[in-house]
Amino acid sequence: MSKGAGSDIDSPGVQLVAERAAASFPVRELTYFLDGGAEQTRMRERFEAIVEAEPVFRRSCADYSLSRPERYRLAMRKQLRLCELIKDLQLTGNYATAGSDVRALRLAVHDDIGSDLQLLMFIPNLKATFSDEQLAHWLPRAEAWEVLGCYAQTELGHGSNVRALETTATYLPDTDEIEIHSPTLASTKWWPGALGRTANHAIVFARLLVAGRDLGIHNFLVQIRDLETHAPLPGVAVGDIGSKIGYNAQDNGFCRFERVRIPRVQMAMRNARLSRTGEYTTSGSVARDVLYSTMTLVRAEIVGNCGNALAKACTIAIRYSAVRRQGFADGGHETIVLDYAMQQARLLPCLVSALAFRLTATHVTAMLNAGDAAALHVASAGLKALCSRLTCEGIETCRLACGGHGYLEASGLPSLLGTFKQNATVEGENYMIAQQTTRGLLKALQAHSVGGEATAPAAGGGGAQGKLVEGEHQAFVRGAAAAATVRCEASTLEALLEPATLCAAYRQRAAWQLLYVRRALGAAAAAGAAPIAAWNGACPDIVRCSESYCFDALVRHFCAAVASLEAVGSPLAPPLRSCRSLFALWHMQQHIGEFLESGYLGAAQVELVREGVRRALLEVRRDAVPLCDAWGFSDHALNSALGRYDGDVYTALYASAQPALNPMNRDEVDPG
Amino acid sequence: MSKGAGSDIDSPGVQLVAERAAASFPVRELTYFLDGGAEQTRMRERFEAIVEAEPVFRRSCADYSLSRPERYRLAMRKQLRLCELIKDLQLTGNYATAGSDVRALRLAVHDDIGSDLQLLMFIPNLKATFSDEQLAHWLPRAEAWEVLGCYAQTELGHGSNVRALETTATYLPDTDEIEIHSPTLASTKWWPGALGRTANHAIVFARLLVAGRDLGIHNFLVQIRDLETHAPLPGVAVGDIGSKIGYNAQDNGFCRFERVRIPRVQMAMRNARLSRTGEYTTSGSVARDVLYSTMTLVRAEIVGNCGNALAKACTIAIRYSAVRRQGFADGGHETIVLDYAMQQARLLPCLVSALAFRLTATHVTAMLNAGDAAALHVASAGLKALCSRLTCEGIETCRLACGGHGYLEASGLPSLLGTFKQNATVEGENYMIAQQTTRGLLKALQAHSVGGEATAPAAGGGGAQGKLVEGEHQAFVRGAAAAATVRCEASTLEALLEPATLCAAYRQRAAWQLLYVRRALGAAAAAGAAPIAAWNGACPDIVRCSESYCFDALVRHFCAAVASLEAVGSPLAPPLRSCRSLFALWHMQQHIGEFLESGYLGAAQVELVREGVRRALLEVRRDAVPLCDAWGFSDHALNSALGRYDGDVYTALYASAQPALNPMNRDEVDPG
Repeated sequence: MSKGAGSDIDSPGVQLVAERAAASFPVRELTYFLDGGAEQTRMRERFEAIVEAEPVFRRSCADYSLSRPERYRLAMRKQLRLCELIKDLQLTGNYATAGSDVRALRLAVHDDIGSDLQLLMFIPNLKATFSDEQLAHWLPRAEAWEVLGCYAQTELGHGSNVRALETTATYLPDTDEIEIHSPTLASTKWWPGALGRTANHAIVFARLLVAGRDLGIHNFLVQIRDLETHAPLPGVAVGDIGSKIGYNAQDNGFCRFERVRIPRVQMAMRNARLSRTGEYTTSGSVARDVLYSTMTLVRAEIVGNCGNALAKACTIAIRYSAVRRQGFADGGHETIVLDYAMQQARLLPCLVSALAFRLTATHVTAMLNAGDAAALHVASAGLKALCSRLTCEGIETCRLACGGHGYLEASGLPSLLGTFKQNATVEGENYMIAQQTTRGLLKALQAHSVGGEATAPAAGGGGAQGKLVEGEHQAFVRGAAAAATVRCEASTLEALLEPATLCAAYRQRAAWQLLYVRRALGAAAAAGAAPIAAWNGACPDIVRCSESYCFDALVRHFCAAVASLEAVGSPLAPPLRSCRSLFALWHMQQHIGEFLESGYLGAAQVELVREGVRRALLEVRRDAVPLCDAWGFSDHALNSALGRYDGDVYTALYASAQPALNPMNRDEVDPG
Repeated sequence: MSKGAGSDIDSPGVQLVAERAAASFPVRELTYFLDGGAEQTRMRERFEAIVEAEPVFRRSCADYSLSRPERYRLAMRKQLRLCELIKDLQLTGNYATAGSDVRALRLAVHDDIGSDLQLLMFIPNLKATFSDEQLAHWLPRAEAWEVLGCYAQTELGHGSNVRALETTATYLPDTDEIEIHSPTLASTKWWPGALGRTANHAIVFARLLVAGRDLGIHNFLVQIRDLETHAPLPGVAVGDIGSKIGYNAQDNGFCRFERVRIPRVQMAMRNARLSRTGEYTTSGSVARDVLYSTMTLVRAEIVGNCGNALAKACTIAIRYSAVRRQGFADGGHETIVLDYAMQQARLLPCLVSALAFRLTATHVTAMLNAGDAAALHVASAGLKALCSRLTCEGIETCRLACGGHGYLEASGLPSLLGTFKQNATVEGENYMIAQQTTRGLLKALQAHSVGGEATAPAAGGGGAQGKLVEGEHQAFVRGAAAAATVRCEASTLEALLEPATLCAAYRQRAAWQLLYVRRALGAAAAAGAAPIAAWNGACPDIVRCSESYCFDALVRHFCAAVASLEAVGSPLAPPLRSCRSLFALWHMQQHIGEFLESGYLGAAQVELVREGVRRALLEVRRDAVPLCDAWGFSDHALNSALGRYDGDVYTALYASAQPALNPMNRDEVDPG
C-alpha cells in the first residue's frame, strides 16, 4: 500500500544489539540454568525447530481475527499433527512429566490445544479411580484417541464444593444399569474442557443413589456422543458454553442428562464397588487422597507456568521499552523509555518475580521427589494462589507499560493475559485455596503445641501421614514463636541485603501473622462464635497469612539458588544477587505496613528499603535485555510485534495492520 | 435442546427480593441524588425506554461472537439510527454537555459507537483551531455528517510527545499548496479513532516547513477519502490498525501520506496564519491553552466514567454474589457467597470507590463552572490517572469474584473491562500525567515559598493565570508544612471515624509526601544532578505523591457530600456515612505503610483501622444490593447473564450457550 515504507525508518533494533553487547554475564549459561541443564535446552530448541518448520503450527496476528469455530478447528489440526509427529519422531516420554520428550514437543507449539486434557486430566483420572479390569478395557481405547474424554465435575450452580453436586446416578437393579440424570438446571455440567465439541465420553461426577440411599459423589464413565457420527446420544444435551476472556481455542462445554443409562460396570470401581445385587463397599478415603494429590501436582505445575507466562510478558515489554523513545533528554534525542526510573519500577520487579517463580517451581518438584507430600500440599495451594495473582497483575503491568500499543492484540499481551487469567480460578479459586495453606499451618501449630509435631497428621489428606521426617511447614511452626520476636538490626543497606536478614524478615512477618490469626480465632471462639463464623470473620487475615508464608518460601528459594551458584563460583551469581535483592526489597516495600506492624522494621528503616529498591533497579536495568533473552523465547513463542528479537517493532506493527493480517482492511471501501 | 430445563430450577432471584426488602434507605432517592436530580433520572429513563424499544440497539451475548467487521457495521447502523432519532425527537442539546438531551439519548445506547468522535473531538477541535472564515465553510459540512472527520495526532513511533511528531507540511508557494508527507515509517499516523474506515477528512498534526524553516507543529485539514466513492485519495494509504483488547467496534486507524497536496487555506488559522507569500504570524500560545483545556475537560469526563463503569461491574458481581451459593453452613444449606467476609472485602470497597468517583466528578464539574481552571488542571491529571487505575483493578476484582462464570463473555465483565482499559492510556498515559499533578503542586509550593501564591502562574497553561482567587491546590500547599506535622490522636474507632479525622489523615499524608519529594529533588540537585535526571530518579515518589493528593480530594468530597445530606436530614445520610467510613479506612489500610511512615498513625492504631474496616464492611453489606440498584442500570445497560435484575442467572447463562447466541453450537456435529 505505501511505497517505500520500511526503507526510510531508523533501525530501532540497534539499541537491542547494544544492550546485548553490554551483558555482564554469559546469557547461554543462564538459559541452561533456567531450563534445568544444557541437555534440556538442546531438546527444547530441537523441538522448537521442528514445530516452527511446520505450516500448521505457524502463528501470526491473523490468529486474533479468527472466529471461535475457526480457532477451535485450527487447534484440532495442530493436535492431529502433534500426534503424528510423536509417532514419526518415535517419542516415548510421558506427556504429563516435566522434561520428557513428548512434553517438550507439546510445549514447543506455544499455543492452546483443547485436547491436551485427554492426556493431562482424562487418562490420569481414569487410572486413579477405575479398577484394573476396567482399565484393561478403557485405557487402550483412550490412548488410541478412540475414546475422547473429558472430566465433568463442576456444574452450573456448583464449583469446587464437590459435596454439593446435584447430578444423580441411580442404580437400576432390574437391568443392572445406572441412570445418569440432571435433576435441575443448576445441575447442568458446565465448564469441563473438551466437553463442548470434542469429547465422546465424560467422566461424570454424580451422586450415587442405591435403593433410596445417597452414597455420595462417585465417578462414572458416560458415553455422550456416537463414535461414528459424533452426534450427541439420546438424552444428552451438550455444547460449548460460549466466548471467554481467553483460551478460546478450547471448547469448554455444558451437558445435561435426561435419564441416560450406562452399564453398572462403568462406575469407577478402584476404591468403591457396587455389586450386581446393589451391595456397596468402599476402601476408605483413598479416592480422596488421589484426588488431592492430582490437585497438588497441577497446582505445582501452575507455579512453574506463572514464571514462564510472566517472563514472556517481560520479554515483550522490556525489549519494546529498550527500542521505544519518548520525551526529550539533553541533546535533542528522545529518551529510551527503559531509562525512565518509573518504567524500571514497573517492569523490573515483574522480571525478578518471574525468576523467583521459576526457582521455587524447581524446588517444589524437588519436594515432590523427596516425598514431602504434606508440606507440599500446604505450600502448593497458597503458592498457586499467590503466584497466579502476581502473574496476572504482572502481565497487565507489562501490557500497560507498552502504552497504546499494548492495547493491540498484535502486541501479544492481551491474549497472553486473557488465557493466563484462568489460572486464578481453576484448580481452586485463589481466595478459597489460599485458606488451605493457613489451615494447614494452624493444624501443624496445634499439633506442635501438644508436643507431637513429628508424627502429627498431615494437613488436608497428603500421603505423608505418620511419617517421622519433619516437613517444611512443621519446621516453620516449630520456630514461629521465636521468629515472630526477631527485629531487624540493619542500619546500612549492606546489612539489610544479607540473605540471612532478608530470610529472617519474611520469616518474621509470616510467623507474626500466623500467631495473629490464631489469636483472632481464639478470641472469636472465646466470645462464643461457632468455628465456621470465626473462620469467616478472620478470612482476610487468613489469606494475608497464606501469602506471607508463600513469600517466605519464594525469598528462601531465591537465596538458596544464589547460594548454590556462589558455591561453585558461577558467573551467574552476581546478576542473580541483584535480582534477589530487588525481589526481596520490592515486595517488602509493597507490604511495608505489614513489616512495620509486625515490628520487624522500625520507621527509620523504611528509607533504607526505599534506597535499596532504587539501587537494585539500576543494577537489574543494566542486564534487563540479556536477562529476558536468557529465557530463550523464540519469536514464534512470543507471537508479538513488540517483543521481536530483532527489535524491528514498527515494521512488524505496520505489517500487522495490512489486509493479509487484518480482515477489517480486506475491502478498500467498507461495504457498510 | 433439553426438555424441561428451567421448570425444575430453584428460584435464585428470591434472594434479591429479600435483599431489596431489607433496604435501610429509599433507593429511588439515592438514584435521584446520583443522577443529579429527579429530572435527570426521568430524562435518562425516558431515553432508555426509547432506545430499548428499537431492534437495532438490542444487545445480547451474540454480540461477543461477531467478527470485527460485523461489530463495526453494527455500530455504524446504531450511529445512523441515533442521528435519525435526534431529528425525530427534535433534540437540540449539545452532544458534549453533561445533562443535555442529546447526550442522554447517546448514553442510553450503552455501547461503543466509533463515530462519537465526530462530535466529541473533531468538531470541537475544528472550532478551537480554525478561523471564523474557515469555520463558515467547514462547520456546516461537518454538522451535516458530510465531512466525516477524525483527529490525527499520534504516530506509530510517537505518542503524547507532540514536539517529536515527524509528519511534515511543506508550503509550496508556486501553487499556494501545502504538501503533507510521512517521511518515515515511524511517522505513520496510528491510533486515531474513526480514521481506519469511517473518516473522509482528518485534522492532521504536522510540522510546518516554510522556505526551509521548521515552524513547529500545526493542524491541517486533509481530505483522505473521496466523498462519493469513499475510496482513499491518491497518495493516501489508510486502514484499520487491528484487533484490540476492547473497543473493537471502533476503527482506530493508520494513515501514511505520500506527498499529498492541500490548499494553503486548509491550515488551521485561528491562532497562526500563513499568508500567500509565505509570511508566518502567530498570536502566541493560545492554541496550546485551548488544547490543554480540551484535555482537562476530557480527563474530568473520564473520572465520571470511572464511577459508572465500576458501578456496573459492582452491580453485576454483587447481584450474582447475592444469589450464588457455595460451601455448607449450619443446617445443610449452602451459604450465599456475599455473606463471606472475604467476598465482602473484595467487592464492597469497589462499590464505595465507585460512589467516591461519582461524588468527586460532580465536584470537578462545579470547579469547572466556578472557573477554578488552574486547580482543575492540577487535580484532573492525577484524578484521571488514579481513578482509571482503581477502576481497571476494581472491574477485574469484580470479575474474579464471580469465579469461573466471570471468565465468560456472557458475564458482561470481560468486555466492560477490555473497553474501559483504554482509559489508562488515552488522554495521557497514567504514569506520565500523574506527574503533572505533583509538578503543579511543586510549582505552587515554590510560588508560596517566595510569598506570591495568590497571583502565581498556574501550572501547565490553565486559563486562570493572574486570577486573584486562591485555587484548591494553592490552599493545599499553603497549609502543607503545618498539615504534615499533624498526628492522629484517636484511641477509639468512633474518634477515628470523625470526618475531620479522616480528612486530616489524608491531608497529612499528601502534605508529608509533597515535602518528601521536594527534599529528594533538592538533595539530587545539591549532589549535582541535572533537573531532568533528578526528576527521573524521584519519579516513583512523584507518582505516589500525586495519588495521595487525589485520595485527599476523594475523601474530602465524600465527606462534603455526606455533610450536605446530613444538613437537610436526608435518609440517605446514614448509609452513605457507612460508605464513607469504608472508603476512607479501606484505602488507609491498603496504604497503611505510608500513614505509618509519615507518622500520622502509630503502630498501635493499625488494629483500630483494621477493626473499622471490618465493621464498615458489615454495615455496607446490609445495603449492598439496594446500593447497586440505586445506580439504575437496566439489563440492557449491563448486558450480563450474571447481573440481571431478577437474579435468574442460571437460566440466562444456559440460554447464552444455545445455538442462537453461540456460533460454536450452530452445527450439532463440528465440521472440523
